[in-house]
Amino acid sequence: MDKLFIIKIGGNVLDNPTALNSFLADFASIKAHKILIHGGGKIATKIGDQLGIQSNYVNGRRITDEATLDVVTMVYGGLVNKQLVAKLQTLDCNAMGFTGADGNLIQATKRPVKDIDYGFVGDVTKQGVNVNLLSLLLKNNTVPVFAPLTHANGSILNTNADTIASVLAVALSKNFDVRLIYCFEKKGVLRDVNDNASVIRHLPKALYEDLLKQQAFADGILPKLENAYSAIREGVKEVLIGEASDLVVNTGAKTDGTLITE
Amino acid sequence: MDKLFIIKIGGNVLDNPTALNSFLADFASIKAHKILIHGGGKIATKIGDQLGIQSNYVNGRRITDEATLDVVTMVYGGLVNKQLVAKLQTLDCNAMGFTGADGNLIQATKRPVKDIDYGFVGDVTKQGVNVNLLSLLLKNNTVPVFAPLTHANGSILNTNADTIASVLAVALSKNFDVRLIYCFEKKGVLRDVNDNASVIRHLPKALYEDLLKQQAFADGILPKLENAYSAIREGVKEVLIGEASDLVVNTGAKTDGTLITE
Repeated sequence: MDKLFIIKIGGNVLDNPTALNSFLADFASIKAHKILIHGGGKIATKIGDQLGIQSNYVNGRRITDEATLDVVTMVYGGLVNKQLVAKLQTLDCNAMGFTGADGNLIQATKRPVKDIDYGFVGDVTKQGVNVNLLSLLLKNNTVPVFAPLTHANGSILNTNADTIASVLAVALSKNFDVRLIYCFEKKGVLRDVNDNASVIRHLPKALYEDLLKQQAFADGILPKLENAYSAIREGVKEVLIGEASDLVVNTGAKTDGTLITE
Repeated sequence: MDKLFIIKIGGNVLDNPTALNSFLADFASIKAHKILIHGGGKIATKIGDQLGIQSNYVNGRRITDEATLDVVTMVYGGLVNKQLVAKLQTLDCNAMGFTGADGNLIQATKRPVKDIDYGFVGDVTKQGVNVNLLSLLLKNNTVPVFAPLTHANGSILNTNADTIASVLAVALSKNFDVRLIYCFEKKGVLRDVNDNASVIRHLPKALYEDLLKQQAFADGILPKLENAYSAIREGVKEVLIGEASDLVVNTGAKTDGTLITE
């Protein structure tokens, strides 16, 4: 099977033009098949504020009402996504910007209302991924760039970018040898959260469970690790958690971040 | 060669929800290959106003400065485009929303500064169209939906939707039997501009030149006709000018609008 890198970047890269340009050059230089998933960054909040749209929270959870959905559709699906695509095109990378609605690439279900109505938020599973069309695009040397948006029943839905990356990785593991790479603000999973030199280079499941028992992980990293192992359990070969500036080395055999395997 | 309909809609359809839903249902029902190109409508102006971005005009011509470019990228490339795509998906139409940057589908040149600096505006020719990738997408039963945006040198560029439709038609005539359909607010080219019943059903070149000499056309239709004949001269088989609500009949052999041929 062909190698495929599925790479997620968040606001810490998007909001820093120098880091972003450097990241995009690194991303474009990857020779294998690749997919980029981006979050939103501060620009959506800024434009929402300028339009007088207030973020609504219920029990500390952000709600996507109709006005907020319009803002994220514009800013994530339009401004951020198309600017990334246009820049990648100058780097000899044939990027194509997508939401999950485009080509029905990621169909979601609108999150059911239980205690909280999250509004226009999409929940996704591997069954919602259009593996055939994505595989066709990848085999024709195009590079999908996903905004954190999916769709259901004629509506765009706001969806967590980490989750989209994970679901794409799981679904495409059928056709590709996938490494899912989460870029975040640290070198990787650290033994000492204040020491970037304490990266755990390789975290197979046995060591993970051992360290989990010792309560050795900082709270912030736990959801990412659970997400990573969930992808591994569902057939993704490798998940890497590392820093955006380490992207090139983290696509190789010897990585600077934390490589997670079965 | 397979039949391909390239259909352009403007603000008069986009700004009217009832007309738009009816148009999308008609568009989705077309069995042949098809491409949709949309303009902007009033929403870009509205959001630009809310963001405090003023439209700049020089000698009556609108200028796309950087702030305006961000607005049209958001609104045309994000909001309008993705809402159309999500709606078409519910109509069993596998729409994919694009700007010209996506997949390098339409590469432009930034308009050179002569008397006026138009700003971030792209001029397009058939050489800028990625015919191979578009043909691949069409043959795989996806339906490209273009925002009126192209790209050059890492930047999105604002581009006239009529021109995009024409350039796509010319470029794709190599691989497809193209009918280019311009939807506007009248039934077609009228002998009497105030009488919708006076549609000229078929306007071959000889009749066009005859009527031109008689100064029989209203001023508003002349640029459209020149555009249409320019497409015909460059190899497009048929151009139809008609009303959006007549789309289905205007894709058939007997049309309600004005059919223009060599």
